[in-house]
Amino acid sequence: MFKNVAIAFTLIVFFALGPVNAFAQGDKAGEHPNFIIIFNDDLGYGDVGRSGSPLIQTPHIDRMEAEGVKLAHHYSSANVCTPARAGLLTGRYPIRTGLAHSVLFPDDNHGLPDEEVTLAEALRQEGYRTGMVGKWHLGTVDVSWPTGNGFDYFYGLPYSNDMSPLPLYRNKEVLEEPVDQTTLTKRYTREAVQFIEEQPDEPFFLYLAHSMPHVPLYASEAFQGRSKAGLYGDVIEEIDWSVGEVLGALERQGIDENTLVIVTSDNGPWFEGSSGRLRDRKGAASWEGGQGVPLIARWPGQIPPGVSSDAITMNFDLFPTLLALAGAEVPGDRTIDGKNIWPVLQGGEQSPHEYLYFFNNQEITAVRSQRWKFVVRSYYRRGLTRFEGERGGEPHYYDPGLLFDLECNPSEQFSYTREQPGVVEEMVKRLERGRQELEPLAREEEE
Amino acid sequence: MFKNVAIAFTLIVFFALGPVNAFAQGDKAGEHPNFIIIFNDDLGYGDVGRSGSPLIQTPHIDRMEAEGVKLAHHYSSANVCTPARAGLLTGRYPIRTGLAHSVLFPDDNHGLPDEEVTLAEALRQEGYRTGMVGKWHLGTVDVSWPTGNGFDYFYGLPYSNDMSPLPLYRNKEVLEEPVDQTTLTKRYTREAVQFIEEQPDEPFFLYLAHSMPHVPLYASEAFQGRSKAGLYGDVIEEIDWSVGEVLGALERQGIDENTLVIVTSDNGPWFEGSSGRLRDRKGAASWEGGQGVPLIARWPGQIPPGVSSDAITMNFDLFPTLLALAGAEVPGDRTIDGKNIWPVLQGGEQSPHEYLYFFNNQEITAVRSQRWKFVVRSYYRRGLTRFEGERGGEPHYYDPGLLFDLECNPSEQFSYTREQPGVVEEMVKRLERGRQELEPLAREEEE
Repeated sequence: MFKNVAIAFTLIVFFALGPVNAFAQGDKAGEHPNFIIIFNDDLGYGDVGRSGSPLIQTPHIDRMEAEGVKLAHHYSSANVCTPARAGLLTGRYPIRTGLAHSVLFPDDNHGLPDEEVTLAEALRQEGYRTGMVGKWHLGTVDVSWPTGNGFDYFYGLPYSNDMSPLPLYRNKEVLEEPVDQTTLTKRYTREAVQFIEEQPDEPFFLYLAHSMPHVPLYASEAFQGRSKAGLYGDVIEEIDWSVGEVLGALERQGIDENTLVIVTSDNGPWFEGSSGRLRDRKGAASWEGGQGVPLIARWPGQIPPGVSSDAITMNFDLFPTLLALAGAEVPGDRTIDGKNIWPVLQGGEQSPHEYLYFFNNQEITAVRSQRWKFVVRSYYRRGLTRFEGERGGEPHYYDPGLLFDLECNPSEQFSYTREQPGVVEEMVKRLERGRQELEPLAREEEE
Repeated sequence: MFKNVAIAFTLIVFFALGPVNAFAQGDKAGEHPNFIIIFNDDLGYGDVGRSGSPLIQTPHIDRMEAEGVKLAHHYSSANVCTPARAGLLTGRYPIRTGLAHSVLFPDDNHGLPDEEVTLAEALRQEGYRTGMVGKWHLGTVDVSWPTGNGFDYFYGLPYSNDMSPLPLYRNKEVLEEPVDQTTLTKRYTREAVQFIEEQPDEPFFLYLAHSMPHVPLYASEAFQGRSKAGLYGDVIEEIDWSVGEVLGALERQGIDENTLVIVTSDNGPWFEGSSGRLRDRKGAASWEGGQGVPLIARWPGQIPPGVSSDAITMNFDLFPTLLALAGAEVPGDRTIDGKNIWPVLQGGEQSPHEYLYFFNNQEITAVRSQRWKFVVRSYYRRGLTRFEGERGGEPHYYDPGLLFDLECNPSEQFSYTREQPGVVEEMVKRLERGRQELEPLAREEEE
């Protein structure tokens, strides 16, 4: 109660005294703000920020949270790497891009299709400098390469850091193979800072996609043994240091107040790390810990300090949101699933989404509204359990699925399928609608 | 600090003023206390007691906790039903009984081997009346039936309540088929109370193995809709009511102070329920939420009120513990893996176990000491990931496994494999010793 009053007061003061919110309407006449998306790999919902583990110190991300917004019900668009990145950069459910199944491997000869429009392409068209530093994982053929997808500059790895061969690239040139991962976070950071400092007066979009904390874990010497949570904690503390370096560069260049910085992750934590209050982890079908990720955003003067929102959002929302803030149009010739969540990033509680779908590979396994989540499939031991339909000649016990009330039970422990038949009916309808629209787009054979 | 002082003071007062602890040494000359094990099916670590969900009320189990002991690091001997029960009743790792692989199904023609000595057999030899009410799941052939394994009386189901056909038995007689599950918890409770009241002056052992909250869930009419956690919560509240009925019967018979009552579970929660702070759930290979279960024990005058212990224990410990309390010898012709944990049940922090093994089917996938847990296998999506050995020609990144410090990180989030090579070496040795001793006892083909 006191907390809410305090937040309300902060908001009133902020909007009364703060700068005019020129960007909220996607005003083309406004300045072009800079955008930095720090996209971590396998970073857990409970790994950073003020509700993170006491064994890991993340003062810079904590500071971003104190000075900005935390989205408490934010999702990646997938439970594994490749589709999560496809969703982020295209603003669409990954299945529309043909990349929903599993992840890409080094010898795959397909990737992000040429006809997809990425956030980088759209912003470059608006006059933005675009840079990508870090893990790509959307294909290695030319049209699928970062520089084939709107990025003026690329420095990083073609895919996950546990794959082989593992060359470090600058644009199309191999710099080092195999890459020395010990200094990877440090070098990514240096590249990111250089990119910012190069032409700080031009609007830019920087996509900093850390390879960590995906395994194998590496921290540079200064961070080895620094946390109380083993190498995993050291790696997180180095990522946090990196966030501090980026923020420092913005301040030095005097562009702090013209830059939106977002820290998030591609999916839940894998074998280490914390998904906090969320159920399960990376790769989970349906559960919050698979796609539920931290999102902390900071933009002094535009996002009020210390706010949070429970409104449901997904990483594909950043595509239309950033385009709106840049005063650009979203492509009109295709379905964009993402919505402008700028009001949510300012602490608003109203999601533009009535429903969001959760995919496991190319199948929808759950659907969520603001309050309810309806789950029809989940891994159990070696199999994918289907709660719908029959089992041994009788309807499955949970048929048509499990219904969770995420308002009172965000950890998905108690199903209200029997108590809420009306909600279940609505969720089943919505699920079927999603299946009819999206599942025919599957391009790979599923088991 | 204050809490510890308060507990220490309680303990001092208790031992100074309390009754002479005649049973602690397994004194054959002492009285024969009664034993009741309330063994719930798929009840989660976070489902009951004072740290359970605010959406579920369990006043009777809460009261047991306030008046007795809570073991915070107690394990079942398996991550699924059948082996968990084999371990409980024989005092041995389930693999010694041939029942470690998966669970028994209705048409299986094997079960608990005749040569196994169950807790009921050993206590009956000591003059105990022995009764079993609830789910058996250790075989349907005569020698494997409850009445073939030391129970004078049996009322219940042969196996899990999601199997078919599903007859309700009294001894060897079918009473009802299929059983009406709506009133199952109520009828189990009535049978349990009758068993207690029949000859309250004779020492007895009652094994009350609820079929709930294993799915399909059923609560009797009085409990439907009573909790705030859907039918799952209703079912837990009815189990709690049942605990209250049992405690009430003991009080009415004036045998409250001569009866040790234990409430626990066979494994972690399945698709619903809460494993609390523990990682993962039923069926998980290695993780705490698979085998970690609540254990609350009450024995007025013998167990000090409101104590807890972090000492590691496993359900097979109840076999030698109860036999010691009854003044009986454990069988000397076989390995009993369980140890007398009576001092732990009195709130002591010293575990008699140097190490405990975690099995997934017939494979050891983890080993734990009081402080450390070493994990070598875990499910990920459709597969069982092996952290040991090679992967793609190189040692697996986590080789030889993940090491968790359960003192500072009971949720198993951060591995200290690199930081603690000495501990890892010791754990690997212990794992190998366990494998050499136990894995050759496997009787089923593993995938």
